[in-house]
Amino acid sequence: MTYHNNILLDVFSGDEISRPPVWIMRQAGRILPGYKRIRSAVSGFKELVKSPDLIAEATVEPLEVLGVDAAILFSDILVIPEAMGVDYDIIEKTGPVFDNPIRSVGQIDHLRKGEEVLPKLDYVFQSIEVTREVIAHRNPLIGFAGAPWTLFAYMIEGSGSKTFSRARKFLYEEPDAAHRLMDAITESLIAYLKEKINRGCDVIQLFDSWAEMLTEAQYKQFCIPYISRIFEELPEVPKIFFPKGAWSSISHFKGMAFDALSIDWKTPVTYVREQLGANQIIQGNIDPALLYARPMEIESAVHEHIRLTGRNLIVNLGHGVYPNTNREHVKVLVDAVKEYRY
Amino acid sequence: MTYHNNILLDVFSGDEISRPPVWIMRQAGRILPGYKRIRSAVSGFKELVKSPDLIAEATVEPLEVLGVDAAILFSDILVIPEAMGVDYDIIEKTGPVFDNPIRSVGQIDHLRKGEEVLPKLDYVFQSIEVTREVIAHRNPLIGFAGAPWTLFAYMIEGSGSKTFSRARKFLYEEPDAAHRLMDAITESLIAYLKEKINRGCDVIQLFDSWAEMLTEAQYKQFCIPYISRIFEELPEVPKIFFPKGAWSSISHFKGMAFDALSIDWKTPVTYVREQLGANQIIQGNIDPALLYARPMEIESAVHEHIRLTGRNLIVNLGHGVYPNTNREHVKVLVDAVKEYRY
Repeated sequence: MTYHNNILLDVFSGDEISRPPVWIMRQAGRILPGYKRIRSAVSGFKELVKSPDLIAEATVEPLEVLGVDAAILFSDILVIPEAMGVDYDIIEKTGPVFDNPIRSVGQIDHLRKGEEVLPKLDYVFQSIEVTREVIAHRNPLIGFAGAPWTLFAYMIEGSGSKTFSRARKFLYEEPDAAHRLMDAITESLIAYLKEKINRGCDVIQLFDSWAEMLTEAQYKQFCIPYISRIFEELPEVPKIFFPKGAWSSISHFKGMAFDALSIDWKTPVTYVREQLGANQIIQGNIDPALLYARPMEIESAVHEHIRLTGRNLIVNLGHGVYPNTNREHVKVLVDAVKEYRY
Repeated sequence: MTYHNNILLDVFSGDEISRPPVWIMRQAGRILPGYKRIRSAVSGFKELVKSPDLIAEATVEPLEVLGVDAAILFSDILVIPEAMGVDYDIIEKTGPVFDNPIRSVGQIDHLRKGEEVLPKLDYVFQSIEVTREVIAHRNPLIGFAGAPWTLFAYMIEGSGSKTFSRARKFLYEEPDAAHRLMDAITESLIAYLKEKINRGCDVIQLFDSWAEMLTEAQYKQFCIPYISRIFEELPEVPKIFFPKGAWSSISHFKGMAFDALSIDWKTPVTYVREQLGANQIIQGNIDPALLYARPMEIESAVHEHIRLTGRNLIVNLGHGVYPNTNREHVKVLVDAVKEYRY
């Protein structure tokens, strides 16, 4: 499939492009007027996540309002724990809270896993089809999921946490059970992402948001094998890996089957280039707080970022856009990329 | 001054020692029975921080109960903002909340700074004298402070935060005022730490807990010059610098006048050795969650850590000990260090 604006797929196929592609993590969200309207029309975040027509609307809005090069299907990483049998709710200003987090090793063997989760996720697949139809041939659509460790951390911890010390305790106290849970999550993710691709996602991004909690040794032991398996078992679409804060593990990523490495704003692009070479496609890594600066400063910082990083770059923030960001400033960033020429 | 247990000072003077020294960040705190008793006898955390006799008791307890090699004066990094005129309270389970955070550039020029803060901090200096008397000639006493950026972050943000986006916004929007505030904090810290040393602290540790929020370029521009000045202007006592998460700035630390670099558990010691050489004294960096493991595993991980790091090491955690840690496991860590021989 080739889209009218195909630049995101072109960067992966190695085609000559005149500027880097750009999209913004959390581009579909509270910075946009349509999203706020949609959000206030539903009972809560979870109702929104399960409403295919609203999902399509939220997903498409940034293409129109911000002019980004790709859409990313509005969803939540926690749909997987829920489909496996560990249900959650999103509490305003608190974040996710789970009704039945994993509190004993025995619970792990009773979770749904692999293709068993698919019937529970039909609303996601429907959302893709509706969204695909609305976008038509204009832009590619990214689908995402949380990486095994990040989902594991929520399932054990039972909520967000500054330290995720309960989840990290589990790695030390119950390493075998931890591997069994990582394995079950991995199988579920593979089934889920395969189906997302089948239904119309052109690119897959895996978020390991809590990678930064682990030591290098733990990341190697408990995370990389599972992430490798996911990328290997998925069909041939471009794959983006965002292991937030896992800078010390970057050298272990050589040979993994992802195509782009997304990095946070605290990881210099020069460091990644040193570790993985000039051909590694980097996504990121603009400081989300830069969008608080004056438009001229945003523009010049974005141009400087592209000059410094060179080709093999997808411009994005180093984290999701902060909710109180001025939408016009996001547009300044996007426009600055679109007017750049290599 | 030489203490009965002088091993922490010996590592700084380069004396031949048979094992590394060990102490634990937040060793005086909720893991200890005496601390819990003291804490429940006062109205709140702030009353405790201002009670020299109780401070002495809390500071000395870990020497006796855990057998660590040094005491660290129980205190809070936020005594400096308060002395400068930005008052706070500690709310149970929420953390610090400020009454009058900095909301306009004009406020900055009305803050107390430099030696003006000293009369407001007399309770700290008294605590040092009482503590010094109780410890007598047994062990050295560490005094600490928050680094300028970390204090700046609280003073602007007005509370803890997952993103400190308001403080980071200030750096982009008001860079000149940001430098003025960093300068005022720096002058206050220099006066404060000089007096802490005068009154009996043998070692100084500077915590930059929110270093990890900034880009490499920001850390270089807004933080390193101020931290350098603090270390340069203090008298000749051993100085420890803990810039949590500032791994990408490590190469910029060459030539700064600190003696030991404290690192978090996500920063491999091999990385620091590569950047700063084998002679750099490293403090850390054991995963605080390791203390949830079985005693035998803790012991072997500690021994492996010392073998891997070699000499020029102060064993500590990579972060403060988690409050729900089993005290006996902390003792296993301390004992494992004390039985080790190079």
